[in-house]
Amino acid sequence: MTSQAQGTGTAAGTAVEGCVYIGLSVDGFIARLDGDLEWLTSRGEAAGDAGFRDFVSSVDAVLMGRGTYEVIAGFDQWPYQDRPVHVLSTSMTPGEDARVTVHGDLEDALAALARDGRRRVYVDGGRAVQACLAAGVVREMTLSRVPVLIGTGEALFGPLPFDVDLEHVRTEVLGGGMVQTTYAVVPREDEDD
Amino acid sequence: MTSQAQGTGTAAGTAVEGCVYIGLSVDGFIARLDGDLEWLTSRGEAAGDAGFRDFVSSVDAVLMGRGTYEVIAGFDQWPYQDRPVHVLSTSMTPGEDARVTVHGDLEDALAALARDGRRRVYVDGGRAVQACLAAGVVREMTLSRVPVLIGTGEALFGPLPFDVDLEHVRTEVLGGGMVQTTYAVVPREDEDD
Repeated sequence: MTSQAQGTGTAAGTAVEGCVYIGLSVDGFIARLDGDLEWLTSRGEAAGDAGFRDFVSSVDAVLMGRGTYEVIAGFDQWPYQDRPVHVLSTSMTPGEDARVTVHGDLEDALAALARDGRRRVYVDGGRAVQACLAAGVVREMTLSRVPVLIGTGEALFGPLPFDVDLEHVRTEVLGGGMVQTTYAVVPREDEDD
Repeated sequence: MTSQAQGTGTAAGTAVEGCVYIGLSVDGFIARLDGDLEWLTSRGEAAGDAGFRDFVSSVDAVLMGRGTYEVIAGFDQWPYQDRPVHVLSTSMTPGEDARVTVHGDLEDALAALARDGRRRVYVDGGRAVQACLAAGVVREMTLSRVPVLIGTGEALFGPLPFDVDLEHVRTEVLGGGMVQTTYAVVPREDEDD
């Protein structure tokens, strides 16, 4: 497929391949409206790290929105190893956190990632995932569903400009009844042109 | 658990146990906004009947909203075998379809099902599922996710008055990458009182 060398927003010929790896409820939420994650982390404990460390080791960089950055920045541990982390924000000041690079929009971020030769990019958080799905730069999604319905919250998915076809790669049932499925995103036909 | 003899809306001591069995997209939709199901049926074909016939054989009755009834009534085949079908509707005339019994609200329907000794009841369609989850009468859910994101549509799940705790029972990957998971619904603590 020659399409990958002509991918979205690339300045140096290296197309960014977005990879999603996220926990959610059976009804599709990644956080409560107040940001609470206890319902997720408490049920996820029995699944150990659910392959997270290996996943982070497999990526070249991380991309997220400001909301997710703020949640993660409040954690005891920075979970992204030494991977370069890029944050989408129009309000953060570049340099206010030396661990991250701030971009005003997705196009800028993708161009910077491509320029740096970062191919496999972990896309974290609902808004970044939705933006990257709409931009056609997500190539893989690992969804870990914990067994609960919470009714309302921050949804992982949102409206899309087109259907996103997926291909099932693997499903595993982890501790605590977490069902973890990895999908490959099928490239859209007009991406092959 | 003595709670089951004291369940919701039962007139004759037989608590209704709602069972959900439904196909949906990875982003949680059961139909497009215009009712279209082609995205689901086309991807579900490779999974054969996905255990549907056996499931219908296992229930004592079927309960659904008017919207779902209208979709099903348009199918070539009535899929509910000889099971009594109850429809929630304030606009349908009782008797306009001899195959179904019409109820003005969920409480009436549950009372009628209990009176008839129907214990295991297939709850079909998004609105009936949401109403039965909120009423605490769902005991089992089999969710069959086809590998696509459609972005908008009729959602299976909606707001809830409480978290619904689930217990993973089984997960199977069927043809076409359909991931089918069965959950038991954990009874709420105040139901045991």
